[in-house]
Amino acid sequence: MRDDADWFTLLWTEDGPVLLDQRLLPGEETYLTLHSVEEMARAIEDLVIRGAPAIACAAALGIALAARRSEATDVAGVVADIERACERLAVTRPTAVNLFWAIERMRSCMRRAVPTATAESLRQTIVDEALRVLEEDVVTNRTLGRAGVDIVPQGARILTHCNAGALATAGHGTALGVVRSAVEAGRAVRVLADETRPFLQGSRLTAWELARDGIPVSVLTDSMAGHLMSRGEVDLVLVGADRVAANGDVANKIGTYPLAVLAREHGIPFYVAAPLSTVDLSTPDGAAIPIEERRSEEVTELAGTRLAPLGVEAWHPAFDVTPARLVTGIITERGIARAPYAESLAALCAEASAS
Amino acid sequence: MRDDADWFTLLWTEDGPVLLDQRLLPGEETYLTLHSVEEMARAIEDLVIRGAPAIACAAALGIALAARRSEATDVAGVVADIERACERLAVTRPTAVNLFWAIERMRSCMRRAVPTATAESLRQTIVDEALRVLEEDVVTNRTLGRAGVDIVPQGARILTHCNAGALATAGHGTALGVVRSAVEAGRAVRVLADETRPFLQGSRLTAWELARDGIPVSVLTDSMAGHLMSRGEVDLVLVGADRVAANGDVANKIGTYPLAVLAREHGIPFYVAAPLSTVDLSTPDGAAIPIEERRSEEVTELAGTRLAPLGVEAWHPAFDVTPARLVTGIITERGIARAPYAESLAALCAEASAS
Repeated sequence: MRDDADWFTLLWTEDGPVLLDQRLLPGEETYLTLHSVEEMARAIEDLVIRGAPAIACAAALGIALAARRSEATDVAGVVADIERACERLAVTRPTAVNLFWAIERMRSCMRRAVPTATAESLRQTIVDEALRVLEEDVVTNRTLGRAGVDIVPQGARILTHCNAGALATAGHGTALGVVRSAVEAGRAVRVLADETRPFLQGSRLTAWELARDGIPVSVLTDSMAGHLMSRGEVDLVLVGADRVAANGDVANKIGTYPLAVLAREHGIPFYVAAPLSTVDLSTPDGAAIPIEERRSEEVTELAGTRLAPLGVEAWHPAFDVTPARLVTGIITERGIARAPYAESLAALCAEASAS
Repeated sequence: MRDDADWFTLLWTEDGPVLLDQRLLPGEETYLTLHSVEEMARAIEDLVIRGAPAIACAAALGIALAARRSEATDVAGVVADIERACERLAVTRPTAVNLFWAIERMRSCMRRAVPTATAESLRQTIVDEALRVLEEDVVTNRTLGRAGVDIVPQGARILTHCNAGALATAGHGTALGVVRSAVEAGRAVRVLADETRPFLQGSRLTAWELARDGIPVSVLTDSMAGHLMSRGEVDLVLVGADRVAANGDVANKIGTYPLAVLAREHGIPFYVAAPLSTVDLSTPDGAAIPIEERRSEEVTELAGTRLAPLGVEAWHPAFDVTPARLVTGIITERGIARAPYAESLAALCAEASAS
């Protein structure tokens, strides 16, 4: 997202959090102002907002809203309202670890503030912390983007999946942040956006935000990557992540794993771009990552139209796991982690905690 | 398709060919009666009917229609009308070789008949030949289906792509013909149907015809196969083909090649079911198979709804090529061809010509 962009993914206003309704893009640009934690939880569940870092930001704003709206007159009452918000938001979506990272960060801020807080100062402290989560997310993505520039060859045709862009973050994006930073550094690129069924984050969201920024983008169905790779039409695969395990296994939008297998088959680099808040050292490997199962109807229906016959059900795992052995590198705000990931990720996370 | 099925893919009536409009399934079962070769050509181009064997049958019926409707009073005039029909139908779709096989078969019949024909007898000969093409297609598929039964384990979860069923043929189907024959032989199975973007032949057509026959079927997006394979949920991949080259390379609906790569990655058998009319010994390998490129809008729009932003274009190769080295076997009406395919396919084709 350019600094002069005329749209935003989410922000905080005195009326409450405001979200761009991603279900309606690209046809309509509608912003929703949310008035309760329950509204924010449903916005996350219903994919008004999605993308691991954006979910984290949304959760932070939801907790800020709970604090701001708390009618408690004592600190304990405000704490109770914040805790209720944390608990509700924690059961919205299971896979993206950034959600839990943000909740823990907000809780930790609260715990630090409580001993010396008044009800009103605690409310303000929590709102301020949520705003910092958003600001830092943009800074992190810009740093991550610059760290990834050198993996993008001049003239690269970059295949991406789902949306790991400004719409998946508070701004700039992760995978698309690398693309934006590469463009800023003078690289000519073309993004090949998997449409990403069933929610079509690629054709609806990635195509929309790149077209807005004037970055060349073409759409393809999720089934076309193999053919394009076999014809030499793809130079690089670059995706985001919802959770990176300690060993480097990567959970990301369903359909990512096949791209990694195909990339290796064709000798094409496969990079993941994710902030360290997506790295979960407490999850040992991909098998331990919970994979969200969503409703069958999200596959069998589209925009109110029934696609499959009535009575026929669909599978709907929302994510898959790409084993670390297929990942060329994981681009973070502290540089690119390479295999062996157990060591490189632990080192980057330790460096981040120490700073 | 069961013998007592209450629907059909296509048939010949005195009013002309009648086709089930596959664009409207599963929501509507509408049959179209076609009145000219041009209407048949457009029905093929617009995917009213699709699937390599069904396209062959449709072309045969289109040529029959040209003969039946010919107002020529001499044999040369009927021949000219038939030739015009052949030329028009030959430029409808480039990849499925069955189309050219059917046109050549009808031309060959015409050439044999001409020396002793009257205008009226030639018209009747051509109609009769077209009806034979349809009848033989069903017989071929039933034979092919039985030939494939033994590759289907009891309780198999069979992943298929696109629609290689009764709707892709004059009846019974190729890949789904094997499934039907396995069910007739007492095998319990479940079909996992890739939805098959962009035209959704899987969720719309495969799911519809299997549900009609009471064969268990679940739909998945094209991006889910890798995840399901990694979780041990797929026992067998079974697809049709639009053209099999002399070396065993297989052109089939876009998205087939990734399944073959993933199947090998997981040690899952990958079978192709195709009549010998799909085997083209004059095409040496997959690189020589013309891959149809279709309109961008078929990807960026669905049921009149724009999915991608206006101005963003999509790739739309309609087929891809699976190299022979990834194919476990090719099930034909004369048995299962195995590697090395150059030898096994040539032998089966020679046997068929000799009979």
